[in-house]
Amino acid sequence: MADDSLSAFLAGAAAAIGARHVVTDPADQARHLVEWRGLYRGETPAVLRPGTTAEVAEIVRLAAATRTPLVPQGGNTGLVGGQIPVPGAGEVVVSLERLDRIRAVDAAGYTVTVEAGATLEAVHAAAEAVDRLFPLTLASQGSCRIGGNVSTNAGGTAVLSYGNTRDLVLGLEVVLADGRVLNGLRRLRKDNAGYDLKQLFIGTEGTLGIVTAAVLKLLPRPREVAVAFVGLDGPAEALALLARARDEAGSSVTGFEVMAGGAVAFALRHLAGARRPTAADHPWYVLVEISSGAADGTARRLLETALAEAIEAGEVADAVVASSLGQAAEFWRLRHGLSEVQRHEGASIKHDVSVPLADLPAFLVEAEAAVRAAFPGCRPVPFGHMGDGNIHFNVSQPIGADGAAFLARWDEMNAVVHAVVRRYDGSVAAEHGVGRLKRDLLAETRDPVEIELMRRLKTTLDPLGILNPGRVIQAP
Amino acid sequence: MADDSLSAFLAGAAAAIGARHVVTDPADQARHLVEWRGLYRGETPAVLRPGTTAEVAEIVRLAAATRTPLVPQGGNTGLVGGQIPVPGAGEVVVSLERLDRIRAVDAAGYTVTVEAGATLEAVHAAAEAVDRLFPLTLASQGSCRIGGNVSTNAGGTAVLSYGNTRDLVLGLEVVLADGRVLNGLRRLRKDNAGYDLKQLFIGTEGTLGIVTAAVLKLLPRPREVAVAFVGLDGPAEALALLARARDEAGSSVTGFEVMAGGAVAFALRHLAGARRPTAADHPWYVLVEISSGAADGTARRLLETALAEAIEAGEVADAVVASSLGQAAEFWRLRHGLSEVQRHEGASIKHDVSVPLADLPAFLVEAEAAVRAAFPGCRPVPFGHMGDGNIHFNVSQPIGADGAAFLARWDEMNAVVHAVVRRYDGSVAAEHGVGRLKRDLLAETRDPVEIELMRRLKTTLDPLGILNPGRVIQAP
Repeated sequence: MADDSLSAFLAGAAAAIGARHVVTDPADQARHLVEWRGLYRGETPAVLRPGTTAEVAEIVRLAAATRTPLVPQGGNTGLVGGQIPVPGAGEVVVSLERLDRIRAVDAAGYTVTVEAGATLEAVHAAAEAVDRLFPLTLASQGSCRIGGNVSTNAGGTAVLSYGNTRDLVLGLEVVLADGRVLNGLRRLRKDNAGYDLKQLFIGTEGTLGIVTAAVLKLLPRPREVAVAFVGLDGPAEALALLARARDEAGSSVTGFEVMAGGAVAFALRHLAGARRPTAADHPWYVLVEISSGAADGTARRLLETALAEAIEAGEVADAVVASSLGQAAEFWRLRHGLSEVQRHEGASIKHDVSVPLADLPAFLVEAEAAVRAAFPGCRPVPFGHMGDGNIHFNVSQPIGADGAAFLARWDEMNAVVHAVVRRYDGSVAAEHGVGRLKRDLLAETRDPVEIELMRRLKTTLDPLGILNPGRVIQAP
Repeated sequence: MADDSLSAFLAGAAAAIGARHVVTDPADQARHLVEWRGLYRGETPAVLRPGTTAEVAEIVRLAAATRTPLVPQGGNTGLVGGQIPVPGAGEVVVSLERLDRIRAVDAAGYTVTVEAGATLEAVHAAAEAVDRLFPLTLASQGSCRIGGNVSTNAGGTAVLSYGNTRDLVLGLEVVLADGRVLNGLRRLRKDNAGYDLKQLFIGTEGTLGIVTAAVLKLLPRPREVAVAFVGLDGPAEALALLARARDEAGSSVTGFEVMAGGAVAFALRHLAGARRPTAADHPWYVLVEISSGAADGTARRLLETALAEAIEAGEVADAVVASSLGQAAEFWRLRHGLSEVQRHEGASIKHDVSVPLADLPAFLVEAEAAVRAAFPGCRPVPFGHMGDGNIHFNVSQPIGADGAAFLARWDEMNAVVHAVVRRYDGSVAAEHGVGRLKRDLLAETRDPVEIELMRRLKTTLDPLGILNPGRVIQAP
């Protein structure tokens, strides 16, 4: 991009949104340019902070006229480099943070209309205030923002019962690549009036349009939640327990997280005040949560019945049902801490994969064997959303080894794990998306017909290639 | 289309799928050419009956080479003319009936893989055989087929709890407009590896590709279902009861159908052996269904609690909880019969609309007043899926009036009802789709940006315009 077209763009942007919202000071830019784990560090001519949808639209119009590449950014919690501007590429960041209003809460209609910059936590609070539930649950919910959740089709721990973000979106407002606004903020649960255009912008990581607002589904708020921490021998036993729990409680099973014993050991060692819920150590653990609409002991009764059956069948070694909200929160804190505590054990290489649910036990056995064979001494500490077949297959370095040398073999480790994933027709980007990290991997692992179709969509919807360029798919 | 290119196409098709599967005899074609209510009657050079995905692909390749327009057809239960070939247009029907295999049932993974021509009932049976539930529930389930369900994003009576067909699809196999096959039969519940291409083919009515197979979600099978037939004063009271039921039972409320008293009266008059469940007549009725995973009386208890609260609050006048499976089935039979029985009351004009849930009571009052004012003596008999804000706002002719004269004012009646729908930001095609019936209405009622984007998708994915041409959106 020529300097003068960038200058023209920035001058136009300043006129459109106010000069003070065109952030060029490096200190003020800093929090937008570093991915939280430090894996990506970006550079940008400016961070733009529009305050309205009309301002976002004007920015995109100017960008189209000047061929300025734009990188939309929400809470900057992404894990695949999508939201970080590539150094030297002249990419301008469009932060949606100032579009953070809850536009409307409709308790009787079970919807909330929010702008892209609202944090997930703010949406939870708005729902709770009218005795409703917005079920999307992520470890980053205090900082991630709805626009990012929608653009990445965020998953989390409640997908088993409530679906991914895609399943929770009723309507979208989107700024298209030419600056026009798609007004799709409908609050309808059934609408087959033509193509469902919002699907084009959910999970496409800001490459086809910039989401500025969304209508989200709300649900009845559970009156009672029962949580158990369960010790068992392996993932096959966990799968059997899942079937028992769902047989007993159906879609009221709102959480089913599996954790390798090693992963839990890390949390017990490094998480302040953490204690092992079970009396003894076990090779694997499960956190299971059942919710119910009535506050009459139903959830706890269903959970205890499923656990009793599993214990009788020899599938479960030990199980502790939380006796208070505080204890339940403590079980969840252990689970949510698993990712963070790994840094205390040196370097780790991560995989965000999914396989068909029934294949998960076999996948875990094979993947663990494969990485142990290829990386002697390495410590696989997988955990994840068993109910969705989605595992964060993380591998910590051997004790005492050189962390940098271990990390240097990142691609090699990925190849070993992904080979097993592909044998099971799994996904190498289950919930964190593709971004920059997995773009080339995507092109390798997907059918050429699929890749060509993705390219065609990209060139159809963003013919100038100005929206989050190079993320997800390389335009032709 | 020139005669010789049609001849070339048919010769190629006969070579590809066998001459006996190229149906040209009028008697054999007949069942493919008449919409079941007789509203559309079609003509076609041939009905093709391919038996495999490869054969469908070959048909589409030949059609692209010869510019032959194709009309995909499943169970021929559509209500908007999408599946009926336009007389004189040379449209060739591609029936998916022979692709009717259940390819795989995965009980442990809660999925089923089926071909497009499998009936919905066959999928229900396959799920039941492994103690699972496929929740899509339609009055036409004995004859409608999965390819049509997917292509129209079918809704039905269980959407409140389980979602539309879109929410139940994990993977699709699709023949694209150039005859290539998109192999997307994944069984994953979380997969953000690039754009979710299957969304392009769900609910787009065969205009962007031909669905040949699908992986569908299965769910735990409820062990107990409680059903009540409730008499009340109006939709506002019904909305209050819905909130109470959901407060009590959350997403275990698996059905919530509202019916005008007049609609139920028709059913009682014309449905063989039908009896009014309540002791007296009421202005409105609700059928409410709650399901539970445990067979321990939970569903019935939750239902009775919600009803007792509503009676105490003066919202419900009378309620009968089914005391047997037979009685529950009888309640549902009344509801499912509402559409069919209308023909015994003369001509009727239908609307398939949705509005935001909370606006439904006001919409019903206003729409009824509007049609009564414009059509004196007419008999509005609305009913539908209250939990989804989706109403079949049907209007029967005045008693003793001339049916043909009444039907001649179809567009005028539509305009009256749709004007009210639009005031509430509703949909004029909530679950039956657009097809040929509502194509022009769609173009009038949707934002020009949306229409332009739909056109762009159509030309991108079907540049020759050979797939179900003129349905949903007119190509430029």
